[in-house]
Amino acid sequence: MKKQVLTGIKPTGRVHLGNYIGAIKPALELAREETYHPAYFVADYHGLTKIHNKEEMNELSRGIAATWLALGLDPEKAIFYRQSDVPEIFELSWILACFSPKGLMNRAHAYKALAEENVRTGRETDTGVNMGLFTYPILMAADILLFQTEVVPVGKDQIQHVEIARDIAESFNHSFGETFTLPEYVIEKETAVLPGLDGRKMSKSYNNTIPLFEEPKKLKKLINKIKTDSSLPDEPKNPNDSIIFSLYKEFATEVQTEEMKKRFQSGIGWGEAKNELFEVMNEFLEEPRESYLELMDSPEKLNEILLDGAEKARKKTRPFLQEVKRNIGILHS
Amino acid sequence: MKKQVLTGIKPTGRVHLGNYIGAIKPALELAREETYHPAYFVADYHGLTKIHNKEEMNELSRGIAATWLALGLDPEKAIFYRQSDVPEIFELSWILACFSPKGLMNRAHAYKALAEENVRTGRETDTGVNMGLFTYPILMAADILLFQTEVVPVGKDQIQHVEIARDIAESFNHSFGETFTLPEYVIEKETAVLPGLDGRKMSKSYNNTIPLFEEPKKLKKLINKIKTDSSLPDEPKNPNDSIIFSLYKEFATEVQTEEMKKRFQSGIGWGEAKNELFEVMNEFLEEPRESYLELMDSPEKLNEILLDGAEKARKKTRPFLQEVKRNIGILHS
Repeated sequence: MKKQVLTGIKPTGRVHLGNYIGAIKPALELAREETYHPAYFVADYHGLTKIHNKEEMNELSRGIAATWLALGLDPEKAIFYRQSDVPEIFELSWILACFSPKGLMNRAHAYKALAEENVRTGRETDTGVNMGLFTYPILMAADILLFQTEVVPVGKDQIQHVEIARDIAESFNHSFGETFTLPEYVIEKETAVLPGLDGRKMSKSYNNTIPLFEEPKKLKKLINKIKTDSSLPDEPKNPNDSIIFSLYKEFATEVQTEEMKKRFQSGIGWGEAKNELFEVMNEFLEEPRESYLELMDSPEKLNEILLDGAEKARKKTRPFLQEVKRNIGILHS
Repeated sequence: MKKQVLTGIKPTGRVHLGNYIGAIKPALELAREETYHPAYFVADYHGLTKIHNKEEMNELSRGIAATWLALGLDPEKAIFYRQSDVPEIFELSWILACFSPKGLMNRAHAYKALAEENVRTGRETDTGVNMGLFTYPILMAADILLFQTEVVPVGKDQIQHVEIARDIAESFNHSFGETFTLPEYVIEKETAVLPGLDGRKMSKSYNNTIPLFEEPKKLKKLINKIKTDSSLPDEPKNPNDSIIFSLYKEFATEVQTEEMKKRFQSGIGWGEAKNELFEVMNEFLEEPRESYLELMDSPEKLNEILLDGAEKARKKTRPFLQEVKRNIGILHS
């Protein structure tokens, strides 16, 4: 039996290489494993806890959907939907709230960190905390449980969310009989932290990212900006010590990677190395970039794909929510 | 222009005379006023914050719906729906949560009272508080705002809920343009507290109630149990000092009431007075009692009425939620 696996994709800023290599690539690889039934959703309503601007929300949500499709998420092989197209999630979220002790939320890491920071800096405990943020773990539990998810791939900081979903499910099942599948987490492989232009971790907050779908000319310019040392062209270089090489091997074939390693060891000029990096990246990204731009240019087509996915999702969520409602006596017939 | 007025009906225990005279009767009178567009809903999902038993929820929710219909709520003239049949409410509830500061909930009376009582008795602040209870005011705001409600009739203890809904609506409108109608409350007329069998306020918690749809024999027995003083049959009695008379005038015509007043003043035996009370109550309740039992015996018919009402409600809530979603950028097209 294939296992139901669920991955939520939160709309964030412009997708960069770090996002791709650290999150998107491994998640798409998971979908190709024979043992899983993969479902992915654009967590637009999770984004609403922070994004309070119409244009920004619209752009980011479309952008993230187009990115995943462009990178090879196949909506025929996976269920790919937008959270806001599946209203059952929000109804279940209320149901779960009625069975979730408030203490469970008080102890959620994200809220606790904010509250502690507020106290530390002399502000009121709940300054800047909205109720979306505070109840976030319940919406996540609804996402997971409504889909009868068995496996949730998570980063270490997300383990608690799966545990909360499991706690709520267990206590519900205890009162109303076996209803929810208990989800388990698998921790995503620790991917090496991808260095940014300045050698620090690639991150929006350091302003050192390379946007994934940057146009070729700008991509070339950004690559040329990558910090290198002052060694001369024919001096031997340590590939494992180089940002250029780290990025190169993510996009090159194994043969190309071996070849490049040798060139580093025998001495390659930084300019030439950067050029090779650009070539291999650009070749890999050319097609996805085109699909991405195409999807962003046809909002109706994108919408259709997402609505189709929601219809597939709701084939599962609608009857299951009915079952939950019958179990608590809300549904009368 | 008629004003949209909304009344939520929470499933509670068996409906008694105090509920009828204090809440149901005035709410139904409001529906007859020419100036209002009345909507009523069975707040089953509000009840879920406390009722965690399948049979109890099912019974109470059906019972309260049947009671209001039996007492004259006309589903042709008012919109009468069950909260759980209108999924837009829960989606809007999440949206509003993302725009509600947590501090607003910390200060909600119902939660504060519980938390303070916990602290007073040496328990953890949030003992026994579930997240449904804590976020309750947001679900109420969603009920009110989704229906573009202009007027909410409330008891004094509910004023804060309308104020919270108004606060959330104002801050949302400020960010995204005029979207929500700002609701106003009207305080329900202070109805005289109805005395129970023992002379204290009629209340489930005092176990001194007279169930509204009690069968005639039992009703008679209960009326005979009403506490009276030891004055002799022909001694003059003060009608304003008598539970019997208080109840009598709620069900009798004006002429009957005047007549009874005189009989009290000239002297009437308690047995006879109780008999007259039974007669006038039974006459009034006979028909509603029959409709009630009929509705409770035909769950499908009751369900149909409620689903028809939900369909009417959703003609309003569906397009309005779309508008809200467009305004925050969740809806792309």
